[in-house]
Amino acid sequence: MSETSFADALLAPRSVALVGASGDVRKNTARPLRFMRKHGYTGAIYPINAARAEILGERAYPSLNDLPAPVDHVFVMIPGEGVDPLLESCAQAGARVVTVYSDGFGETGAAGMARQEALVARARGLGLRLLGPNSIGLANLHSGAILSVNAAFETESLLPGSLSMVSQSGSMMGSLLSRAAARGFGFAKSVSVGNESDVTVGEVVDALVDDPHSKVILLFLETLRDAPTLARALERARAAGKPVVAYKLGRSEQGDALAQSHTGALAGNDAAVDAFLRAHGVMRVRQLETLFEIAPLAERYGAHGGRPEAAAADAPARVAVITTTGGGAASVVDNLGLHGMVAVPPPPAFIAEMAGLGLKLRETPIMDLTLAATSVQYKGLLEALLRTEWCDAVLSVVGSSAQFHPDLAVKPLLEADKPANKPLAVFLAPEAPESLSLLRAGGIAAFRTPEACADALSVFFQGTGRPPAEVPPVAWPAALPRHGMLNEREAAGLFAELGVPAARRRLLDPSRLEQDLARLEQDLAQPAAASASDAAVDAVPARSGPSLSYPLVAKVCSRDLAHKTDAGAVRIGIKSLSELREAISAMLDNVKRHAPAARIEGILVQPMEDRLIELILGYRRDPLVGPTVLLGAGGITAELTPDYALRLAPVDEDEAMRMIEAVRQTRLVRGFRGLPRGDCAALARAIAAFSRLAALDGAVVEEAEINPLFVRADGVVAVDGLVRLA
Amino acid sequence: MSETSFADALLAPRSVALVGASGDVRKNTARPLRFMRKHGYTGAIYPINAARAEILGERAYPSLNDLPAPVDHVFVMIPGEGVDPLLESCAQAGARVVTVYSDGFGETGAAGMARQEALVARARGLGLRLLGPNSIGLANLHSGAILSVNAAFETESLLPGSLSMVSQSGSMMGSLLSRAAARGFGFAKSVSVGNESDVTVGEVVDALVDDPHSKVILLFLETLRDAPTLARALERARAAGKPVVAYKLGRSEQGDALAQSHTGALAGNDAAVDAFLRAHGVMRVRQLETLFEIAPLAERYGAHGGRPEAAAADAPARVAVITTTGGGAASVVDNLGLHGMVAVPPPPAFIAEMAGLGLKLRETPIMDLTLAATSVQYKGLLEALLRTEWCDAVLSVVGSSAQFHPDLAVKPLLEADKPANKPLAVFLAPEAPESLSLLRAGGIAAFRTPEACADALSVFFQGTGRPPAEVPPVAWPAALPRHGMLNEREAAGLFAELGVPAARRRLLDPSRLEQDLARLEQDLAQPAAASASDAAVDAVPARSGPSLSYPLVAKVCSRDLAHKTDAGAVRIGIKSLSELREAISAMLDNVKRHAPAARIEGILVQPMEDRLIELILGYRRDPLVGPTVLLGAGGITAELTPDYALRLAPVDEDEAMRMIEAVRQTRLVRGFRGLPRGDCAALARAIAAFSRLAALDGAVVEEAEINPLFVRADGVVAVDGLVRLA
Repeated sequence: MSETSFADALLAPRSVALVGASGDVRKNTARPLRFMRKHGYTGAIYPINAARAEILGERAYPSLNDLPAPVDHVFVMIPGEGVDPLLESCAQAGARVVTVYSDGFGETGAAGMARQEALVARARGLGLRLLGPNSIGLANLHSGAILSVNAAFETESLLPGSLSMVSQSGSMMGSLLSRAAARGFGFAKSVSVGNESDVTVGEVVDALVDDPHSKVILLFLETLRDAPTLARALERARAAGKPVVAYKLGRSEQGDALAQSHTGALAGNDAAVDAFLRAHGVMRVRQLETLFEIAPLAERYGAHGGRPEAAAADAPARVAVITTTGGGAASVVDNLGLHGMVAVPPPPAFIAEMAGLGLKLRETPIMDLTLAATSVQYKGLLEALLRTEWCDAVLSVVGSSAQFHPDLAVKPLLEADKPANKPLAVFLAPEAPESLSLLRAGGIAAFRTPEACADALSVFFQGTGRPPAEVPPVAWPAALPRHGMLNEREAAGLFAELGVPAARRRLLDPSRLEQDLARLEQDLAQPAAASASDAAVDAVPARSGPSLSYPLVAKVCSRDLAHKTDAGAVRIGIKSLSELREAISAMLDNVKRHAPAARIEGILVQPMEDRLIELILGYRRDPLVGPTVLLGAGGITAELTPDYALRLAPVDEDEAMRMIEAVRQTRLVRGFRGLPRGDCAALARAIAAFSRLAALDGAVVEEAEINPLFVRADGVVAVDGLVRLA
Repeated sequence: MSETSFADALLAPRSVALVGASGDVRKNTARPLRFMRKHGYTGAIYPINAARAEILGERAYPSLNDLPAPVDHVFVMIPGEGVDPLLESCAQAGARVVTVYSDGFGETGAAGMARQEALVARARGLGLRLLGPNSIGLANLHSGAILSVNAAFETESLLPGSLSMVSQSGSMMGSLLSRAAARGFGFAKSVSVGNESDVTVGEVVDALVDDPHSKVILLFLETLRDAPTLARALERARAAGKPVVAYKLGRSEQGDALAQSHTGALAGNDAAVDAFLRAHGVMRVRQLETLFEIAPLAERYGAHGGRPEAAAADAPARVAVITTTGGGAASVVDNLGLHGMVAVPPPPAFIAEMAGLGLKLRETPIMDLTLAATSVQYKGLLEALLRTEWCDAVLSVVGSSAQFHPDLAVKPLLEADKPANKPLAVFLAPEAPESLSLLRAGGIAAFRTPEACADALSVFFQGTGRPPAEVPPVAWPAALPRHGMLNEREAAGLFAELGVPAARRRLLDPSRLEQDLARLEQDLAQPAAASASDAAVDAVPARSGPSLSYPLVAKVCSRDLAHKTDAGAVRIGIKSLSELREAISAMLDNVKRHAPAARIEGILVQPMEDRLIELILGYRRDPLVGPTVLLGAGGITAELTPDYALRLAPVDEDEAMRMIEAVRQTRLVRGFRGLPRGDCAALARAIAAFSRLAALDGAVVEEAEINPLFVRADGVVAVDGLVRLA
């Protein structure tokens, strides 16, 4: 095997072999050789073609076994069935990486997936790394190593630059490269990962973090196939100060479903992926072109302008807007408003300062300079704004001069002294490709549409998320089963063990009902602290909640009854022992009829709890990103409008507090219209505690829910819950 | 005055005068003459300049009084103060229209507005119509009559076409023209209306409806200044089958506020303007470039594809998607999903039919033909899709071939037989200006971004609204005052008069309280039908609601108390006469302390009503669009998330039913999760009845509200309300 590192063999190979290279220039498979010659690759290229000794005027080799020297990287363009038999000779030729353009593998269904798995196993056994299959290839735009059939490289000359892209869609990689190139954006590396059978997005990102040419990393994502590797790579990128931007399909349910079926990945959940990307500092854009248009902001000013998420939530980013086209500026500002940003008017002192430059500003959110300012004045205003404390960014919206006098229009923008801590963005209202190019060349973020401009600024300022909290492992309570469903009493016990206050409850045994009822009545008569008999009845005592008193709630305890209300297995508002006795008998009858097979593990009795609002606390091991915790509005009306916050689990109390602030329903207990305040600190503690389901040692929780979780003025209480184990 | 009609003088003048034309080519004021010569205007042009006998090689005239022949249209480019003195000579020169580029009028504040009003009065007295002031001018791209200083006309050659634009922003008109021209969109007329002191957007639209060159009318709007005229013009456009598309600033609160301050227009409300535009059939796009990109869809297939709004709500539009780039297609489909549209998979019968063409399709929402289809097959599939019944539109997403083989890529699209009833839209994934131009030339809607593509399709299919219902006038009840606030009893009486069921109520007179209480107790003892004494106590009896019985609600009746709860002037849950007596005494004390000046008109007593859900019904004469009716979710949690439907008033019951369907909260009484159903028919009747506030004859209601309106299984009931008269 060659001495080349995996990263170099992947991204900067010094010698390459092209298996299946065609001599017919019209064929895709003739492209890599043509591209590399056209764009000046200086490494060794070995075209492999058993049928021809010469290809496009160059010597061809019958097989990988006939090469005069080792190769770093083999690019395979033969029909799928030929790939597996080829791997051994790849290894013998010294390759570290084999990129497989061939299709007919995992993307075609179960049989193809089996072929793909066999291929990867074979490659690993041989010490080879596999990019693809079904990858359109990759390119190094500085060296001209273009192991790709992507038509985008037909371009007359490459534009090497500081962006690198990793794409799960081969065709979109080309489309994005062509759009970016037309606007003067230069690239360092572009990589199509295909089916990600071996090398995944995460590993490529990891390699790009170490690549000095790559300053900003762009991701076109359909799904996530190896979240842990990507998470590590993203944290390395964050530590290295390398911004990562993503466009991910799946913002709509339809798009989410589509991405799954298209890529054959596990069923996922865009909200969870979104939480993952934010947690690891990725800027996720909503508009396709923003993916590269945002790069100058990110490269020059750092990811998120250095704003922590908390700052973003407390104070919307303030943008100072100067323009020569009021309508054009308003079209951006309108969109900024939709994203929760504000155009900020200049304060009086600043207006006075600018009067010294001969500029008459008004205290309005758009500083309109139409017909009023010279180039020198414009530059003076711009520099003054970039130095002020009262705005977080400056937006310049340029009118018709951008179209007809590009040099004049962008001159003040290019020449102005631009400090590194105050982002400048530009929107050009007319069709003005020359001005766009000039700005691009000057490293200034310039946008073609008001929507993309607002998208970029809002994503840039939305603040960074944080990785899951590190918490010590929590031992699985010995009393609880380790598989299947927990019953409600066990679930409440588990939540209490983690530190979530559960409703006080008592388990009655139907087989000795009168005995248990008598003891219950005794306690109800003395409603002080928890009595000693609690421990006997309920293995895991509740830590909070009011003492047991009428009115009571009674429900059948059974791990086999998921929908107790439907089964007639819940009664509320029980006001006396005789009512309770009647309720128990009726419920047992109902369950016998409704679900004769359900094992009845007792009758749970709880007090009716009061509350200010009710919420849902959910936990799920997402198949793509792993443990997630959700806080959502409770009650049936909450189902009408999504109102929840979702994070990677576990979260600490700070992050939990941000989740609380992100759920609109909680405004009802946070001072809205003078309503009584709820105990948000206790709520945050409960969320953080519940999220430690991710840290349990001894059993794996697949899914858990507290519904409802009551928020009171003095604490919270879990009223009902379920837990499903792996 | 010339024989020319207003519309011709405005849009197609045969002779023009340019007052203030400069001979200095660098000046804006030299542009109109240059533009018209460059673009071949064949009418007479009279430059007016007192200082020079010749301008740019042409004869100039010292004043309008010296012209050899009458002119249709005068374009004025002199300082603002000179415009008024000029008008008389404009009239004498035979002009019908004077377009004023000069600024310093209404846009500068109160004094400027006074100057502007004087100017308009003078013009009207002289039989002149005024476009502007502060208008960047207008252009006829077929005749080359360019009475505009807009830099966009510097272009080497005009592209005459079928679109016409009316813009409230002069600079954005130029920006949009330049963007459209770069994409091959030809224009008929473009008009900047400036301050709309006399000729408003509505009148220009009206003229364009009659202009045979104008097939689609585009509006760039910041506000509405003359809604009635625009409404009439839009209905004429609808009748003539001429689609109207609008981009209006103000989707965000910030944008709305900005548009107002920028234009000096009355404070408005974007939701009301939105209702106005939809009611009159306007397609309002969200993205700037969609304004012109949507035009081929509208021109070829008619506004909204002929879908009534009801159809759009019941069944989302189904789009058949074919592509050579799965990722590119998914990026559009994802956005379609955000707008509630569905990508529809081909049914098995269709797949079988296509197998006959040699095409292997799968039953997936994106038909991916990568590497699989010939041009002939592609065309065959396209034609088959355009003939099927199972989709409402066809979307073709083209990959890299659009960039490198434009002819080949768009050939099947251009050559396919395209029926007039099934829209075709195209998104080009790579940078592909040539393909865009070819498609444009072929009259096919083609989009640069997935977002604009989805925006256009969703706006196109969202369905038409309807103008306000025509209802007979309703006489103002003689017993009610005609100005100021109504008290609650009067408001309830007015609602009942219109046909909205109000809660049964009784007004007690504090000055003879014991007498009234005795009578009340008598009625409470016999809770059958309304007793005869009702009429004596309450001039306008309630039409519905349960009979009066405990528990009761009591509140102080006073037109001076807007916030009764804050004043301690409401008590609920009153269970006996003694409780009622105590409550009345306490409330009167509270009001005396809290609002000593409030006139107390009695004590209103109502039964506690039950309900499934509570809603708010609102009415407002919007300053921009006039009477509007709003149905919104009730209760305090509804304030957390906007959940309302707003329409121009009055509405009929059909439209009211669509409002009900548009409010998420009403799902709780429309079969959601098996919850009991509410009486939506009664609700629709109540909404329609309430909206007849707009048809009252004898007094003008400025604002009215029923809050809450209870929805029950058997009817609705207005529990509380207020009415403010003009």
